[in-house]
Amino acid sequence: MALEIVSRARCFGGSQFVYRHASTATGTSMRFSAFVPPQAERAKVPVVWFLSGLTCTEENFTVKAGAQRMAAELGLMVIAPDTSPRGDGVPDDPEGAYDFGLGAGFYLDATLDPWARHYRMRAYIEQELPALVAATLPADAGRQSIMGHSMGGHGAITIALRNPGRFASVSAFAPICAPTRCPWGKKALLGYLGADRALWRQYDSCALIEDGKRLPGLLVDQGTADSFLNEQLHPELLEAACAAAGIPLTLRRQEGYDHSYFFIETFMEDHLRHHAAALGAPVRG
Amino acid sequence: MALEIVSRARCFGGSQFVYRHASTATGTSMRFSAFVPPQAERAKVPVVWFLSGLTCTEENFTVKAGAQRMAAELGLMVIAPDTSPRGDGVPDDPEGAYDFGLGAGFYLDATLDPWARHYRMRAYIEQELPALVAATLPADAGRQSIMGHSMGGHGAITIALRNPGRFASVSAFAPICAPTRCPWGKKALLGYLGADRALWRQYDSCALIEDGKRLPGLLVDQGTADSFLNEQLHPELLEAACAAAGIPLTLRRQEGYDHSYFFIETFMEDHLRHHAAALGAPVRG
Repeated sequence: MALEIVSRARCFGGSQFVYRHASTATGTSMRFSAFVPPQAERAKVPVVWFLSGLTCTEENFTVKAGAQRMAAELGLMVIAPDTSPRGDGVPDDPEGAYDFGLGAGFYLDATLDPWARHYRMRAYIEQELPALVAATLPADAGRQSIMGHSMGGHGAITIALRNPGRFASVSAFAPICAPTRCPWGKKALLGYLGADRALWRQYDSCALIEDGKRLPGLLVDQGTADSFLNEQLHPELLEAACAAAGIPLTLRRQEGYDHSYFFIETFMEDHLRHHAAALGAPVRG
Repeated sequence: MALEIVSRARCFGGSQFVYRHASTATGTSMRFSAFVPPQAERAKVPVVWFLSGLTCTEENFTVKAGAQRMAAELGLMVIAPDTSPRGDGVPDDPEGAYDFGLGAGFYLDATLDPWARHYRMRAYIEQELPALVAATLPADAGRQSIMGHSMGGHGAITIALRNPGRFASVSAFAPICAPTRCPWGKKALLGYLGADRALWRQYDSCALIEDGKRLPGLLVDQGTADSFLNEQLHPELLEAACAAAGIPLTLRRQEGYDHSYFFIETFMEDHLRHHAAALGAPVRG
């Protein structure tokens, strides 16, 4: 499992890397970005995962979210993976839709052909990439948190629910809270998994909570001017599920903010401080 | 001179706009971005101009530089124009080179055909756009500062030198310090202005200083790992010109940093604080 450096740039005293590697989970070459803070020169540092939304690659978060400043101050490594397999032989939505296929892996393992061969982002993000990061980067695998945006907020919360104890803290920006009950989610789940809705529940935050999965707590920011809010995101369903399960949820409705990275960068510092507090950073300064 | 809103997003309590308008200077439609800080709800705010480098539009700075956070805190409007005219009838480099034509206006008024008709970025940035901003946005035209990156650093410094008293402070990231003496600059000056080198001096920071133009002072950051440093940028020539003229120059050679926005975002806070101090911000909080 060798990492190839695609690019490296000094940033806030640390280094912003983009790496490429061969993935056994997806059967493709995969790219991810890693911000390595200056504290990593002396010791392994905690890791915060950021899972991106529809249409994104590893680049959007890396160049737009402005996370490096606080990550450098707090001593956090931040990993941003791609959102789907890509490359020769990887099928895309037959009509080129932005919400299925390339850029829309939905952090699940597809079971239907032709998707099942490469669309295995759950195995990649849950198992393969954490092992690779722990083996090759100065990451303290015992201290991890996870966050994400939109489809990646769905990914962050569902991965945390299915892996109790792995993450010290979980947060999301405008997550898709109930994929089994919104158009984006239903299209993806039907397309990748088929019509058996029982299989869908492992990829729905609200359903996982209803089925007994738990989180230590959850920070969610949601813009009130988000054009996807009413049809796709449904934070009220997450609110109800957390309330019923006794999961501490801090859901902040941010007046006038939309779905863009201008929203994400505004609240990135809050999220990183939230994770750093849970992870016990600043670390080994 | 009507402004059309291309996009608007809430960001750090202010608003990030992209505007489009018909330009008389360039004879085209032009776009620029404007971050309007929350302080502008109550009174006009100082303006900081950011001029971008080769290949950029107004978007690169706006989504990558992370300037909005400090601009919101300090009460600064930040304007980022495009780097050339664009659209039907605007000629480009015949070979599509990145360093001439579209994306490479070099903040000058071309005199040679076919460039002279539309390539008038000096008139646009020096005269037309400031008047438009002052007339239509909550900008205090009496309090302005200017900065830029690479080709835009050249633009910021030369515009300030040619307009003494207009800007309270001037700064640059990795500026092209002496266009008359580097390949990028010589290609642009020859192509847009012709072979008469006397005409080139008004677009060369070092030459302008040698010819008696003055600045109140200058902050420049330059990465030592910048791949364009030795051939194109020549900060040592600016250093010599400022020393000979008695212009206070703070030139910081930043170890290991390259030419990218990861470099710019790292030092953006320093530059905005520098400008805010000169402008007397935080303003009317």
